[in-house]
This record gives sequence, C-alpha cells and structure tokens, in this order.
Amino acid sequence: MPKKRTAFFVSDRTAITVEKLGRSLLSQFDGIQFVQVTLPFVDSIEKARDTVRQINEASMADGERPIVFSTLILPAVHNIIEQSDALILDLFESFIVPLENELGMPSSHAVGKSHGTGLHYTERMDAVNYAMNHDDGGITRDLGSAQIILVGVSRCGKTPTCLYLALQFGILSANYPLVPEDFSDGVLPSALKHHRKRIYGLTIQPERLAQIRAERKPNSRYASLENCRHEIAQAEKLMKQANIPFLDVTTISVEEIATTLLHLTGLKRSGM
Amino acid sequence: MPKKRTAFFVSDRTAITVEKLGRSLLSQFDGIQFVQVTLPFVDSIEKARDTVRQINEASMADGERPIVFSTLILPAVHNIIEQSDALILDLFESFIVPLENELGMPSSHAVGKSHGTGLHYTERMDAVNYAMNHDDGGITRDLGSAQIILVGVSRCGKTPTCLYLALQFGILSANYPLVPEDFSDGVLPSALKHHRKRIYGLTIQPERLAQIRAERKPNSRYASLENCRHEIAQAEKLMKQANIPFLDVTTISVEEIATTLLHLTGLKRSGM
Repeated sequence: MPKKRTAFFVSDRTAITVEKLGRSLLSQFDGIQFVQVTLPFVDSIEKARDTVRQINEASMADGERPIVFSTLILPAVHNIIEQSDALILDLFESFIVPLENELGMPSSHAVGKSHGTGLHYTERMDAVNYAMNHDDGGITRDLGSAQIILVGVSRCGKTPTCLYLALQFGILSANYPLVPEDFSDGVLPSALKHHRKRIYGLTIQPERLAQIRAERKPNSRYASLENCRHEIAQAEKLMKQANIPFLDVTTISVEEIATTLLHLTGLKRSGM
Repeated sequence: MPKKRTAFFVSDRTAITVEKLGRSLLSQFDGIQFVQVTLPFVDSIEKARDTVRQINEASMADGERPIVFSTLILPAVHNIIEQSDALILDLFESFIVPLENELGMPSSHAVGKSHGTGLHYTERMDAVNYAMNHDDGGITRDLGSAQIILVGVSRCGKTPTCLYLALQFGILSANYPLVPEDFSDGVLPSALKHHRKRIYGLTIQPERLAQIRAERKPNSRYASLENCRHEIAQAEKLMKQANIPFLDVTTISVEEIATTLLHLTGLKRSGM
C-alpha cells in the first residue's frame, strides 16, 4: 500500500498559485498518496487558528505531520500557522527576505496586490468577450483585430485555447473551424484570406479525436475513426499548402498550447 | 526617478506558476520599476545558455544584477542558469530538498508532471463546453447538471466567472441573466425555479456597471447610470426575496470571485 500524507495549500488570498506550485512539487514524489486540502482566504486570526486545528487533526489521524504549502502575506496569520504540527513551506517568507536584501528596501507586506482588478484586468475581460464572440467562426467581419486566429477540425481544442489565452493573458483570439466543405474547395475559407499571418493551426491524433467526438456523438459518422483520419489529413494538407504553422495538441494541455502559441507569435502576456 | 531592475521568470515548462508567484512577490516592492521577461520552455542546454546570455546582457545594461525567478526541474538546465549574473530564486530547488528530507525519498526530477492532460483534464475541457452552452441562459433544459448557476444583471461578470470556474477548476457552471422583464414579474425566471440551491448572484456598483456598459454601447439608455442603478436595485431585491446569496464583484477579480464561490458552495476543485 502506498504511504498516505496530507498536504495543505494555505493562503490569505485565492490559493491558486500556491496550489499549483504545491501540486507540481508533490507530483515529483511518486510512491506517496497525498490527500490535498486547499484553504483560501485565511485572512484573520480566527481563520488562522481554525486552520491550525485542521492541520493538527490531520497530523494525528495520519500519524505523520502534514506538508503545508503557504503564501501568507499577513505576518499575524503567518505566525499562528507556523505553530502547527507540520512541515511548513511558505513561498512568501522563503523569497521575501532575499528580495528585501537584494533590493535594499523592506517589502510592503500588503495583501491584495497580485490578482486585483487593476492593470490588465479590463484587457483580460475584454479578451474573454472577444473570444466568446469569435468562437467557431462567429462575427467574422472583425477578425482584423484578432491577435491570434486558431484553425483546425471540430473538437481539436480551439475554444478552450482561445478562452485560456483571453482569461490568462488578455490576448484577443478568434477561432475558425475547418470543415469538410473547405477540404473539397482545397483552399482556406475566404473569411481567413486576409489574415494569414495571424493564423495558427491545431491538429490532433485521429484516435484521440474520435474518442473526444464519441463522448459528444457516440456511434456517429462524425466520431468514427475513419472520418477523423480523413478530416485531419485534409486539414493538415490545407494548412501546409497555406503555409500555416500548426501544433499537435494530442498530449499537451491547454496551458501548454496557449504558452507555446504566445512563444511562436512573440505576443506579450498581459498576465495577472 | 524610480529605480529600474529587470526580473526574469524562467521555466522548463509554461512558466505560468513562476510568473504569478514572481509578480506577486515583486508587487510587494513599491518604489521599483521592474522590467519583466518571461522565458518558458527553457528545456535544453542550448536554450539555457541563451537564457544566461539574456540575463547577463540585462545585468550589463541595468548596472544591477537581475532577479531571476525560476522553476527548473531539469538539473542540467538549472546548473547552467545558476551561473548567470543574477539573484536566482529557484522555487523548485528551494522546496524540493526539504520535501525529500521530510518524505524520506528522492524526487523524480521529471518534467511534465504538473499540467499534463491526464487526471481532471477531460473534466475541465467538458466544463468549458458546458459553460459555453449555458452562457446567457442558453440550453436551459439541462440546468439540472450545473454545479453553480450564476445570476445577475447584464455585464456584471457572470460569463468570465463561469469560464474561469470551468477552465481552472472543472466546475460545471451556467449563467442566467436577470433582465427588466424579470423585475416587473417580481419573481425568478421560471427556468431557475427548481435549482434554487445552486444559484448564486453577482452584483456590482452602478457607477462601475455604467462604465463597463458604456464601453460596449456608449450613450445608450442601457449604459446610463440611472438605468444601471434601477436594474441593480431590482436585481438585488429579487435575489433577497428568493434567498439567493450574492457577491459584490466591483473590486474583486474573476479569480477571487471563482474562489469565493467554490468556498461558499463547498465544491471540490478538480484543479490542474
């Protein structure tokens, strides 16, 4: 039986960053099963005490002390959490002291500076609206303002990628499906003709596409492996002819697709 | 003039996590202007050497050594980056050694374990489709499978919140607008009646809403402060009558709204 340990992700904010980094670190230890508990908004003495209680209970139950990943900007909260029976890895504390030394000034210890609704927030929200309006070939008349236009066969991952580019990076992205009619014409859909430099393709292995489509329309011609093979071959042929760079997304996540596209285009991340 | 320093976010993966944490840390130092450079996919000796070149050039140009935040899982890459002329804060190295000691085993040092397309990935992508199909009251017949149903006046942030809940946490969320007709009826739209326990409201200050709406439809009655005030007052009254908890989102980001909703509902994050 694999060993079991409890891991906590604790923050006085959303805990999104500490959870991601913590999970990434834990994934480096294969033989251990981690029960993972995320506690966001631990921003008062009372909540800090309650968190310590939860950590100590897990310690008793497991017979091993939990691992606590934290980003606690509030010193009062941090001091309480520190007294729990756990290995505490505080991201903030670990880096803020070397930064203060390097920069020759004290940090502000102010909560609420990382996400916020300030700089770039409106851009990101506008980009979400743009992606919604330009999903699946919608409102093609103003593709001109798109920074990235994604093409590919139905269900290859265009929509989640556009939404991720918008929400995470504030990039204006549109997507346009390549459908069987385009293959018989043998040329790019006319709506795309004037935007060739901003077009990127996604492709995927036929087996995986058939699986995804079958969840939506089981036993359909649309989802059959034979049809998926045909559509993908035709789409790739079209993209090669039109000199559109494309990416095989079979084994990569939407985060990786979006980051790779940014990298290819040289676009700046607005970021959070 | 504020001091200028260069900060790099370097990763052998997407650099999304290190960028967020790094930005959050830098935001604690007010008087300094940071030029920020993100370098994802530094996963070869050659790319590592090129990164060192960029860091050293910035050091020369600034007359001060850069700050490098990194998550480098590959030891060969890490060893090269370490030789650059910078303050290097490697998130991985800082925490992997204490974790190895605590867990009594070596880490796998394998790249590619944090995002991936494995566990929960399909859930997240399915949730994106669900959010797209159930935006703005779409396909109301199967609201039954929604884990969260967001209501509120037009443009108060329902759509980005649903998409974030889906992409980040794999939560099935739908949104349903409260429009003037609902206010004259004085009751919740009938499509929502059987789902009351899963309904959460968003509200916003009229001044902010008027600003957001004016970007879309300038000088319209829809965007006028008077109309925004009226709609919001009516929507809040309706939500109170129907016992629907609601959140003022005027000054909080989509990350915070989504995390707060998860917290209120007690839903588990599928996470990345």
